[in-house]
Amino acid sequence: MSLTTPYDDNNIFAKILRGEAPAHKVYEDDQTFAFMDIMPMMEGHTLVIPREPAVNMFDLSEDAATTLIRTTRKVAHAVRGAFDPHGVICAQFSGAPAGQTVFHIHFHIIPSWEGVEMNLHARKMQEADVLADHARRITAKLAT
Amino acid sequence: MSLTTPYDDNNIFAKILRGEAPAHKVYEDDQTFAFMDIMPMMEGHTLVIPREPAVNMFDLSEDAATTLIRTTRKVAHAVRGAFDPHGVICAQFSGAPAGQTVFHIHFHIIPSWEGVEMNLHARKMQEADVLADHARRITAKLAT
Repeated sequence: MSLTTPYDDNNIFAKILRGEAPAHKVYEDDQTFAFMDIMPMMEGHTLVIPREPAVNMFDLSEDAATTLIRTTRKVAHAVRGAFDPHGVICAQFSGAPAGQTVFHIHFHIIPSWEGVEMNLHARKMQEADVLADHARRITAKLAT
Repeated sequence: MSLTTPYDDNNIFAKILRGEAPAHKVYEDDQTFAFMDIMPMMEGHTLVIPREPAVNMFDLSEDAATTLIRTTRKVAHAVRGAFDPHGVICAQFSGAPAGQTVFHIHFHIIPSWEGVEMNLHARKMQEADVLADHARRITAKLAT
């Protein structure tokens, strides 16, 4: 998938936004939606997406970039509150060679801990009940 | 450095913002400043910082996050135009365990190419004339 790949309405995040696929939601508003990564690189790995149908940073509008970072910042605070990590990575990959695997733009929020090695990206599915519990912990922090 | 480390006015990016340390600048405005990473992980590796003195995502104001992503998006377009990469990573590391090495918040813009391996983070200094040339190429794209 190159950086000029057209948007595909049937990507999994588009289906999540339309309610056609399930997700462990932690937050949503008019412009953005946040949920647990089902193949977390670390405990608490959360994704934030715009409702705007954009493949990557290069077809994302400035307005959508603005609301996307605002939600990412807000959810990052909640992820930190829920998991008490030593560090947090906020990362966005445009294009397969950069590590993008779903072609609806998303920010990763990935907690990190000293001495704890990260899982490889998009390799191993986490149990649904664990993800549901993590989503509840983050949602609780967003409510405070 | 933990996530609650106080801001140190003498960090290298604070000095760059005050004009007390040199940088290969590609862009600046009232709120943000962008320049070449002197230890690039890939050709064209650029950094975007707010003028606001924030250590990481957790002491950055919402307004500064907004202007920071707007400049990151704008500069990412120019980096893409200047280097024609196959992919681009936009990443922000909060805390040393997440990979943060300078404790003034910054977004990395890192081009990537199929089959080209990334250098390790913050290991090898690039030649000043190469960085100056890269800064010129990005600045030229920002002017178009």
